[in-house]
Amino acid sequence: MTSLRKPSDKLGMRPGSLIHVGDRHHDDSLITVVDYTPDEITTITATTAEEIFAYRERKSVTWVVIEGLTDVSLIEKIGAEFGIHQLVLEDILNTHQRPKFEEYDDYLYIVLKCLVPAERDEFSVEYEQVSLIVLNDYVFTFKEKRDALFDPIQVRLNSSKGRFRNLGADYLTYAILDTVVDQNFVVIDSLDDAINDIEDQLLDSQSNKETLNTIQRLKREIITMRRQVAPVRELLAAMLRSETKLIDTQTHIFLRDVADHSMRIVDSIESYRDILTGLLDVYISSVSNKMNEVMKVLTIFASIFIPLTFFAGIYGMNFEYMPELKWKWGYPALWGVFLLITAGLLVFFRRKKWL
Amino acid sequence: MTSLRKPSDKLGMRPGSLIHVGDRHHDDSLITVVDYTPDEITTITATTAEEIFAYRERKSVTWVVIEGLTDVSLIEKIGAEFGIHQLVLEDILNTHQRPKFEEYDDYLYIVLKCLVPAERDEFSVEYEQVSLIVLNDYVFTFKEKRDALFDPIQVRLNSSKGRFRNLGADYLTYAILDTVVDQNFVVIDSLDDAINDIEDQLLDSQSNKETLNTIQRLKREIITMRRQVAPVRELLAAMLRSETKLIDTQTHIFLRDVADHSMRIVDSIESYRDILTGLLDVYISSVSNKMNEVMKVLTIFASIFIPLTFFAGIYGMNFEYMPELKWKWGYPALWGVFLLITAGLLVFFRRKKWL
Amino acid sequence: MTSLRKPSDKLGMRPGSLIHVGDRHHDDSLITVVDYTPDEITTITATTAEEIFAYRERKSVTWVVIEGLTDVSLIEKIGAEFGIHQLVLEDILNTHQRPKFEEYDDYLYIVLKCLVPAERDEFSVEYEQVSLIVLNDYVFTFKEKRDALFDPIQVRLNSSKGRFRNLGADYLTYAILDTVVDQNFVVIDSLDDAINDIEDQLLDSQSNKETLNTIQRLKREIITMRRQVAPVRELLAAMLRSETKLIDTQTHIFLRDVADHSMRIVDSIESYRDILTGLLDVYISSVSNKMNEVMKVLTIFASIFIPLTFFAGIYGMNFEYMPELKWKWGYPALWGVFLLITAGLLVFFRRKKWL
Amino acid sequence: MTSLRKPSDKLGMRPGSLIHVGDRHHDDSLITVVDYTPDEITTITATTAEEIFAYRERKSVTWVVIEGLTDVSLIEKIGAEFGIHQLVLEDILNTHQRPKFEEYDDYLYIVLKCLVPAERDEFSVEYEQVSLIVLNDYVFTFKEKRDALFDPIQVRLNSSKGRFRNLGADYLTYAILDTVVDQNFVVIDSLDDAINDIEDQLLDSQSNKETLNTIQRLKREIITMRRQVAPVRELLAAMLRSETKLIDTQTHIFLRDVADHSMRIVDSIESYRDILTGLLDVYISSVSNKMNEVMKVLTIFASIFIPLTFFAGIYGMNFEYMPELKWKWGYPALWGVFLLITAGLLVFFRRKKWL
Amino acid sequence: MTSLRKPSDKLGMRPGSLIHVGDRHHDDSLITVVDYTPDEITTITATTAEEIFAYRERKSVTWVVIEGLTDVSLIEKIGAEFGIHQLVLEDILNTHQRPKFEEYDDYLYIVLKCLVPAERDEFSVEYEQVSLIVLNDYVFTFKEKRDALFDPIQVRLNSSKGRFRNLGADYLTYAILDTVVDQNFVVIDSLDDAINDIEDQLLDSQSNKETLNTIQRLKREIITMRRQVAPVRELLAAMLRSETKLIDTQTHIFLRDVADHSMRIVDSIESYRDILTGLLDVYISSVSNKMNEVMKVLTIFASIFIPLTFFAGIYGMNFEYMPELKWKWGYPALWGVFLLITAGLLVFFRRKKWL
Repeated sequence: MTSLRKPSDKLGMRPGSLIHVGDRHHDDSLITVVDYTPDEITTITATTAEEIFAYRERKSVTWVVIEGLTDVSLIEKIGAEFGIHQLVLEDILNTHQRPKFEEYDDYLYIVLKCLVPAERDEFSVEYEQVSLIVLNDYVFTFKEKRDALFDPIQVRLNSSKGRFRNLGADYLTYAILDTVVDQNFVVIDSLDDAINDIEDQLLDSQSNKETLNTIQRLKREIITMRRQVAPVRELLAAMLRSETKLIDTQTHIFLRDVADHSMRIVDSIESYRDILTGLLDVYISSVSNKMNEVMKVLTIFASIFIPLTFFAGIYGMNFEYMPELKWKWGYPALWGVFLLITAGLLVFFRRKKWL
Repeated sequence: MTSLRKPSDKLGMRPGSLIHVGDRHHDDSLITVVDYTPDEITTITATTAEEIFAYRERKSVTWVVIEGLTDVSLIEKIGAEFGIHQLVLEDILNTHQRPKFEEYDDYLYIVLKCLVPAERDEFSVEYEQVSLIVLNDYVFTFKEKRDALFDPIQVRLNSSKGRFRNLGADYLTYAILDTVVDQNFVVIDSLDDAINDIEDQLLDSQSNKETLNTIQRLKREIITMRRQVAPVRELLAAMLRSETKLIDTQTHIFLRDVADHSMRIVDSIESYRDILTGLLDVYISSVSNKMNEVMKVLTIFASIFIPLTFFAGIYGMNFEYMPELKWKWGYPALWGVFLLITAGLLVFFRRKKWL
Repeated sequence: MTSLRKPSDKLGMRPGSLIHVGDRHHDDSLITVVDYTPDEITTITATTAEEIFAYRERKSVTWVVIEGLTDVSLIEKIGAEFGIHQLVLEDILNTHQRPKFEEYDDYLYIVLKCLVPAERDEFSVEYEQVSLIVLNDYVFTFKEKRDALFDPIQVRLNSSKGRFRNLGADYLTYAILDTVVDQNFVVIDSLDDAINDIEDQLLDSQSNKETLNTIQRLKREIITMRRQVAPVRELLAAMLRSETKLIDTQTHIFLRDVADHSMRIVDSIESYRDILTGLLDVYISSVSNKMNEVMKVLTIFASIFIPLTFFAGIYGMNFEYMPELKWKWGYPALWGVFLLITAGLLVFFRRKKWL
Repeated sequence: MTSLRKPSDKLGMRPGSLIHVGDRHHDDSLITVVDYTPDEITTITATTAEEIFAYRERKSVTWVVIEGLTDVSLIEKIGAEFGIHQLVLEDILNTHQRPKFEEYDDYLYIVLKCLVPAERDEFSVEYEQVSLIVLNDYVFTFKEKRDALFDPIQVRLNSSKGRFRNLGADYLTYAILDTVVDQNFVVIDSLDDAINDIEDQLLDSQSNKETLNTIQRLKREIITMRRQVAPVRELLAAMLRSETKLIDTQTHIFLRDVADHSMRIVDSIESYRDILTGLLDVYISSVSNKMNEVMKVLTIFASIFIPLTFFAGIYGMNFEYMPELKWKWGYPALWGVFLLITAGLLVFFRRKKWL
Repeated sequence: MTSLRKPSDKLGMRPGSLIHVGDRHHDDSLITVVDYTPDEITTITATTAEEIFAYRERKSVTWVVIEGLTDVSLIEKIGAEFGIHQLVLEDILNTHQRPKFEEYDDYLYIVLKCLVPAERDEFSVEYEQVSLIVLNDYVFTFKEKRDALFDPIQVRLNSSKGRFRNLGADYLTYAILDTVVDQNFVVIDSLDDAINDIEDQLLDSQSNKETLNTIQRLKREIITMRRQVAPVRELLAAMLRSETKLIDTQTHIFLRDVADHSMRIVDSIESYRDILTGLLDVYISSVSNKMNEVMKVLTIFASIFIPLTFFAGIYGMNFEYMPELKWKWGYPALWGVFLLITAGLLVFFRRKKWL
């Protein structure tokens, strides 16, 4: 089973065929199952689908985290066991989704993107697709990579004496969404730092070609980021509007909080976009300013020395009858003229504020 | 029957007159009829309208693909047989339509545009208009050209053991829309490649006049593309809102999926437009940067040699009384002055970071 | 009765006073009356209001086309006869209206603008205001000028064996709207040609100051055009929403078609605006590119010859002790130095890709 | 009682404290009272509040125009007599209001801005705030300055044989709104003239620094104008939506007309903003074009004479062995070389279209 | 208990954990309690939570102002006493909130930002977060810093003979919102001054690099300001839409007034943004204009003296046969030629309007 890089690579296949579309990060999936009641909590690493389904009979919330999307047969089995629509399974495996919320009779399907600062040396962002299937007492989370993103939730589940474990699958869903959305702030902060660096460079006239490249790269990152993050607002608005029984009205307050955060993030991204556009204008202005300075140096040098050279040239001529050449004070007088011309032009340039 | 190039060429004709407006790709139409039940499937190439109507009595889904829009009388016959409104027939023949969905009592009319990468050497896109008439058990598809666009659907119909052939004309409609919309991803991908190429050229300072032309051409393509693709979102939203009996509620999940795809495509196009606008700014900056560099070279050369030439000119003068000319070390001393001036200016330029 | 050029010229008059505001094209109005039933059709040129009202008793559709808006008393008589609101009469005479649709108890009032390519040599557009009053069996059309705009409708009415003449005043209204809206495509096409011309000029580096003027003029035309055409969409949407009995639901399909056309026109205008904005950027870039080229020529010439001139100046000095001047091979050796410097600089410029 | 210049100067005062905020134009207010029935009309200049209230018992429409906002006690008395909310009184006195419509149980409160071309020599606009309180049979109009703005209404009231005086306070309100809104057209026209002047200057290459200043000043005026005028559309929409008994449905047709006018004005302002933005781009391009021309002159002069000077320098050298200097035809031959070089370069520059 | 600088620093903590996120301005909180009835008013500085709760039994309005957000346990106690949701308490402590209004069963939660001109020498703005919890007869106000912001309200409460103290907690809420929103006008005014300064500098050609930096800084401030202020409109719209019993309908008129103010502020901010964007274009144009001037000086000097120097060079050549050198009037004649060339070029440059 190969993973396809581009969305277009899947063309020609029948809709509903289960194939992993996207970058392949791991060869096998890591399955973590957390099952909890107010009183008890069990965490196992599952290897078969059956280990996942073992908790169906219990009155407990079961959280299944599947990291790595390569085990297609596992996802097919989950789909069959819980009656998940073929298109949902297909969407989980295709990591080019737009964030969205879909409500089905027995379950909810949520996709969103987690922003991860890339480990390359410059500012850049990677996107991990996180899909959720929320059933009555099961929450499935599908991730592309193995990382520590959800560790804090596990810690809280383990340490929670009651509150968290008393609340149902919908509160767990909230906690997951909150974690993913708040993760974006990390990226926003580093973006803020990067923009401040450029601004400082520009305002200190330290800008160079590299600055232009950085502005353009940041702008592109921001355009992409906006596309991945903006739909989260609609996603949460749709969840709040939804009349599903799977989300308790009490949980609405919490979801509204996540919605506020996602609005703040989009506000910030839009501000940064405006600021970067402004910085490009400042960059262009600063290039013009530099050219102006270069031109002034040239003009001052040329305007002073070209006339002087002309006068020197005059008295280098070989006419037989040039009375000045015979004058005793001709040469020093000419130096006087040179100094006068130079002084006059310097005054002229100073008046023009070029000096 | 001639084909008119421009939408305005049809002016003055009465509304509702059937004339093919658009590029003429083929002299005759190719008619493919696929008739299927869950158990059976027949595929024929029809030459008369009667062969198409032959399946009306059967309890089956009949899919008629008409490639080439020159056979106006055929379309008139279909219109008469199925009671299609004159304006719909006219719209099918006019390939300057805006994508739209229209609901009539007994049938649905859908127009949309399929993006085809043009075969010319540079990045450019062609648009094929695809019209659908969806009746209870007939689906008509009108295309401008003969190509392999719908081959995958035929393959799936033939190989499908039940699923596809069990579902009705509305699922077939979905499959057609899905194919047309997903085809756009191919164009989006090649657009992405083209933009990355320009970006690399610009950031490596390899840009030239050609780069400007390419940016402008891409921008224009994107503006056109957006106009052809953006209304597809509204089209699908209208289909999902519609209360027609011709679309089963079960099919809504599938249409929602196509709607997601078309939103992703429009998102991408808008991102690319923003990125291209940014690239034009970067191009302009890079031209200014280059000019700066040219100016610096000129200024450095001129500022160093113009004063030196002046001094050489001084001692080329023919004054009778120029004591320096008589000095034994006058000439080497002047060389010393030359070197001092040059060194001073080089330090000055280095301080200004021009070297 | 004078015509006022500017909307502001009417200030201070009481609202509802009937005065022609706008350009005066003809001294008298031409009144054409077409009265038709499915069986009969009469066309006369009327000179008095009474000839117009003569058809009121008949069960027929009467279409009155008034070309030229100078005969204010005629419009007053029509207003009195059919009970038209004073403000509507005033609006008909004021050719600075925004396209709009107004629904009254017994009649509909529609204003829109017809785009006419101006006969001046360059691309420019004129706007003719067309007003409609639609009563139960009367349709009044008020135009500013005498032209052949509605001839095709008259031809169709005359030749129609039944269809057109069977349908009522609302279908006639549709036919008029359709004619006016489709007329815009002619202008759009010539706009497209004009933009393509500029684009070709720019990409072939054939641009000059004239190009800038043309871009600006086109941009201004487009901004004006948009203002005149964009409200037509709302006008048609309002007609489709309206619950007036004067428009049969059957006619809605036709109006929807006109609405589609007007959306296509606005889409095109907006695309052209975007493209022109892009072309201005390309123009600015091309001016910079040209300056770059000029600067390169200057820099190459100056950088090569200024140092050479300096060396020539050196050996033009009159120092008594300049050993080189005595050397036998001094002069040819200096030429060697000249060639070396020149070659070195040419290599340097070629490395910089300036040659 | 002092007038405060800036909105912020009122900070710290309790909301609802009556203080005039804005420019102070007159020391005392001029109060004109027009009382009319279909049969009678009385116009007086009042000096006390009691003269205003004298008409309360009569079955007549009383129109009170207060020009100058300095008599705060008068406004307090009116407020007390008619039960106007404290905040409304405060808003009347604060001339920094946003145009708005407020509906109270017994009265309506309307604020809008009248554009007045300023008398300074260049294009600039002043804003006069006009507030209306509309009661059942009283209309209060508060203006900042004494001018002839409402004279035409008084003339019409006096000359009207019945129509105007038969209609109630709501028609008077309409007449006032219509007068204020139509006044804007005067400003729009002068704006149009100013923009045409700039455009002509730019396209005839007559632009200078002054042009840039004018563009910027106009742009700023337009931005301010938009802010003052755009909310009038919402104001009128709110009036039309309102279910107050103070506005007769018959008057709605008239208000709709004013709404159309205000939409036209906003459309125009937005067009002018777009055109001005375009003109700034044209200005920037024209500056670049001029620089190009300057550069070309420099480059042509320098490229021709710098090489020639080099050759002249060569033969000014004092080498002992320079055979050319001895040649009889050396000097004329060199002139031949000079002419050849010059001709060659001229051909080169002509090919490049620089000449 | 430490304060975290960045929103992202709180990542990984469980939602609902009470920690102060933001800048820490004071080490301890200042608690002011104002308790009033129409007849009595008491103002104390509380040090324990119990002093705050002491007024719960009385039929009075109690206003608690907490300045400084470091005393987390106090906020926890208030939350416990009045049953405030954990997320609200968390939001109060996190000073990175977006302005918002939240309605709970027994209380309202309002957050907004107060703009404070920073004390640094240049134009810059600081944001203080003000949170309100409105209960039936308690209003809690949480501020980041100790300042005189609410002093005017306390003065009015003390001096009010009845009006203010007769109205309930909702009127107090209005007074607080009004104070915070009107405070923004101070910043808007200083912004206006700063922009006028730049404009004057630019139009008087006094601009320099500092101008560019100021424009960019102002633009950034405005972008941030808009983000902090724009949501206040929605906040107030939500309050007006809300059906809570905690806000009397009578108070709606007052809230509408605050809403108007906040709309005016956002209008102003948007205008300033447009004006600043225009100023950047003017700046870029002015840099180009300056460069043009520099180029003209260079071109005039070079174009005049380079040909003259060439002629001087000619007659400095050492050809044996140069007849002109022998002519008696050769030298003065050459001066005549020099003057002719110079005059000719000066006329040429004057025609080009470069002089």
